[in-house]
Amino acid sequence: MDQQTSRVDVGIVGGGPAGLMTALLLKRRGISAAVVERRSQEAIRTTQRAGILEAPTVDMLVDAEIGSRVLTEGHEHEGTVLSFDGVQHRIDFQELVGRSVWLYPQNEVFRDLATAWQAEGGEIHWEADDVAVEGLESEAPVITFTDAAGEPGRIEAQLIVGADGSRSMCRRLIPDEVRTDYFTSYPFAWFGILCEAPPTAPELIYANSEVGFALISQRNEDITRMYFQCDPDTDPESWSEEAIFDHIQQVLGGEEVVQLKRGRIIEKTVLPFRSYVCDPLTHGRLVLAGDAGHTVPPTGAKGLNLAFSDVRALVPRIVEFLEGLTGGEGLTAGADDVGSGPGAPADLTAPLRRYSATSLDRVWKAQNFSWWATNLLHRAPDEDEFAHHRRRGEFRAITGSVHGQAYFADSYTGWAGDRHD
Amino acid sequence: MDQQTSRVDVGIVGGGPAGLMTALLLKRRGISAAVVERRSQEAIRTTQRAGILEAPTVDMLVDAEIGSRVLTEGHEHEGTVLSFDGVQHRIDFQELVGRSVWLYPQNEVFRDLATAWQAEGGEIHWEADDVAVEGLESEAPVITFTDAAGEPGRIEAQLIVGADGSRSMCRRLIPDEVRTDYFTSYPFAWFGILCEAPPTAPELIYANSEVGFALISQRNEDITRMYFQCDPDTDPESWSEEAIFDHIQQVLGGEEVVQLKRGRIIEKTVLPFRSYVCDPLTHGRLVLAGDAGHTVPPTGAKGLNLAFSDVRALVPRIVEFLEGLTGGEGLTAGADDVGSGPGAPADLTAPLRRYSATSLDRVWKAQNFSWWATNLLHRAPDEDEFAHHRRRGEFRAITGSVHGQAYFADSYTGWAGDRHD
Repeated sequence: MDQQTSRVDVGIVGGGPAGLMTALLLKRRGISAAVVERRSQEAIRTTQRAGILEAPTVDMLVDAEIGSRVLTEGHEHEGTVLSFDGVQHRIDFQELVGRSVWLYPQNEVFRDLATAWQAEGGEIHWEADDVAVEGLESEAPVITFTDAAGEPGRIEAQLIVGADGSRSMCRRLIPDEVRTDYFTSYPFAWFGILCEAPPTAPELIYANSEVGFALISQRNEDITRMYFQCDPDTDPESWSEEAIFDHIQQVLGGEEVVQLKRGRIIEKTVLPFRSYVCDPLTHGRLVLAGDAGHTVPPTGAKGLNLAFSDVRALVPRIVEFLEGLTGGEGLTAGADDVGSGPGAPADLTAPLRRYSATSLDRVWKAQNFSWWATNLLHRAPDEDEFAHHRRRGEFRAITGSVHGQAYFADSYTGWAGDRHD
Repeated sequence: MDQQTSRVDVGIVGGGPAGLMTALLLKRRGISAAVVERRSQEAIRTTQRAGILEAPTVDMLVDAEIGSRVLTEGHEHEGTVLSFDGVQHRIDFQELVGRSVWLYPQNEVFRDLATAWQAEGGEIHWEADDVAVEGLESEAPVITFTDAAGEPGRIEAQLIVGADGSRSMCRRLIPDEVRTDYFTSYPFAWFGILCEAPPTAPELIYANSEVGFALISQRNEDITRMYFQCDPDTDPESWSEEAIFDHIQQVLGGEEVVQLKRGRIIEKTVLPFRSYVCDPLTHGRLVLAGDAGHTVPPTGAKGLNLAFSDVRALVPRIVEFLEGLTGGEGLTAGADDVGSGPGAPADLTAPLRRYSATSLDRVWKAQNFSWWATNLLHRAPDEDEFAHHRRRGEFRAITGSVHGQAYFADSYTGWAGDRHD
C-alpha cells in the first residue's frame, strides 16, 4: 500500500476551530495548508461547548467569508446579568464599552469552518490515527499519520501548527529544557445540563449564592444550557432532574427574583476546571495555537476567543516566516531579533517567537480574567467568612460603580484596543 | 479625693482622628461630647502614620472649619505611579474620575483636630488610665477612668462612641453572642523608613518586582517616607541603610528607571498586615467608629479615610438617635425597624443599627480593595509561577486599559457617588 504524500506550506495538527481558522486564513493569503484531525467530524460537531463570541471573533468569521450564519443564527447580547445572593445587576456592554458579544455555540463555529474548508477543496484527514510530527529542528518538518481507511499518510511542510487541543501532543514536542508549563487548579467543577426549555431570560445570568455558582446560558428557543458549581468528583447520575432545577433556582435567589424555565434534561456532564499556559508557544518549525497552548476555566468564556486571537496574531507571522524562507521582504523582519548579531544570518524563526510573545501577553490577561471571574462568582468549599464577605464587597465594587462595570465589560468583551492585527 | 463627673450627650472613648472628628461634628450640631484618651497628645502626634486623604476626607476637614492647613500644607496628587518589573504606568486620577487625593500625614490631621477641639473648650482627658464603660444596655451609659493626675473621672452620657483604635477595648463590650469578628492575615509586612531625603518623584510610586513590593511615599521637601515588603518577623536593625536603599532601588527597576533619593534614615519600623471587621458596629448604647471596628492593610491607604466615612455616616444617626430619646422627629425614623411590630414602641437604637449596616457596606468594599491591591502589588513568599504571571496579567489589564485604570482610580480615590451623607 502506497503512502500518500502532500507537500504544503503549512501542516496543521488539529481540525478544531483554531486549526481550521488558521488553514482558511492562510489560504486567503495564498498559502497552502493541510489538516490532520484525530476525531471524526461528527464527534467534534456534537461535543457541546460554550458559545460566547467576542466581537473580533465574529469579525474574523465574517471577514474570512466563512458564512454569515453567525450573524443570522447567532444572537447579539448587549449585556449580561450578574446576580449575588438573589440581587440582579445588569452589565450593559454596549453602553459601557460600545461592544456586544454573540451567542453562537462553538459547535456551530466548527461546522461553518469545516464546511468552508471542505467546500474550497482544502485537504483534511479526519479520524487520523498515529499522528506524529518529525523534523521540527530541521528545515523540512513532516506530519505522519494513518488515515481513516488505514492508509499511511505524510504531509511535508515548511512549518507545523499544533492546534490539537488541551491534550496536545504537539505541545510535548517542545523540549522540557525550553518549555515551562504553568498550571493552577480549582476546588470545583461545573455540572452542565442541556434541557428542553425556552430561555429563562433574554441574556445570560451569572449567579452567585451561599450555595455557589450557576450560569443560565442559552442555546436556542427550545433548548437551554445551564451550569452549576459542583465538586469535581460528582457523578452526574447522582442528581435527579428535580434536584438540579431546585438547586439552580435556589442559586438564582428564588422564584420571586427569576422564574427558572425547566424541561426534560437531555445531557448531563461535569466539566473540570483548570488553567494552563505553555511558554513558549513555538519551537523550531512548530507553533501552537488555541487550547494546545493554553486552557482557561469556562467562567470568562475566553477559550474559543483566545484561540481566535492566537490565529489573528499568528497568520501574519506565518506569512513573514515563509517570506523569510524565500528571501523575501520578511527576511528583514528577523534582523531585529536579539540573537542575530551584525552580519549574522537573520533568524528565520524570529516572527514565530514574536507571535509567541504577543499571544502570551493576551493569554495571561485572559488567564487573570478567567481566574478572577471564577473566584468572584464561585464559593470555594473551604471559603472562610472573611473571604465570603470580601467577595461580596468586590461584587458591589464591580456592580455599584460605572468604572467597575466597565472594567468587567471591557474584559468580558475582549479588551478593545488590544487587537493584535 | 472627689470624683469629677461630666454629663454630656455623647461620651467618646479615643482621642484619635475618628473620636475627635466625631466630637467636633457633634458640637457643630449642638450636641455635647467629652473624650477620653489613653495616650498622651504628644505620643499620638509623633506616631508616624500614612497620609493619603480622599477628597471627601479633605472636605470634612474644610467644611467643619477645623483649619485650612490641609489645603495649604497638604499636597494635591492628581495621580499615582504603578510600577511592575521596572515599567512605570501613571494612573491619572483627575483625567479618569475627576478627583484627586491629598498627601497630608495623619499626624497632622490629628494635630488640627486636637487643636480645634481644645481651642473650642472641648472636654478631653489625655493619658487616661483604667478606662471602662458601663451600662451600655441601660439608658445611662458611663465612662469611668483615672485621669493624668491620678484623679478618678466619670462621664455620664446618652451614648458611647468607641473610637479607641485597632486594639479597641470598646469592641469587646459587644457580647460574643452577637458579635462576629472577621479576620484575614497576610504572609508579609511593611518595612517603613523615614529618611532625610527630598522626594524621589512628584507622586507616590507603588512598585512591584521579583523581590516584592516597595512604596515611595512622601512627607515634605526634606523628609521622605518609604516602605518595602518584608517578612513579618524582620528585625528592623538587621537591615543597614545601604542595604535598604539598594533593595528599594532594585524594586523600582534600577537607576535607569528612576533614581532613588537617599539620605540618613531617622526611623525604621515594621508594620504588620491584617484585615479585621467587627459586625455589628453597635450594641445597646455603644457605636464603634474607625479602627475600633475595622482594620485594613495599608496598601490601599484606606484606614483614615474609612474612619472619616464612618464619622460622616454616624453623626446624622446620632442626631436622629438623640432626637428619638426626647420624642422629637427622630422617633419616626425607628418605625421602619424590623424589630418593631405595629403598635410596639419604636426602637430607639434603630438609627445606630442603620449606621452599622451603612458603614459595613463601605468597609467591605474597602476591605476588598485593600486585599486586592495588596495581592496585586506584593509577592507572597510561596507564590507559584502561575500566580506570578497571572498577577502580571492583572497588572497589564489594569494599566493597559482606560477601564482598568478607572476602576483602580475610582477605588483609590474613594468611590464617587457612594458618599453616605
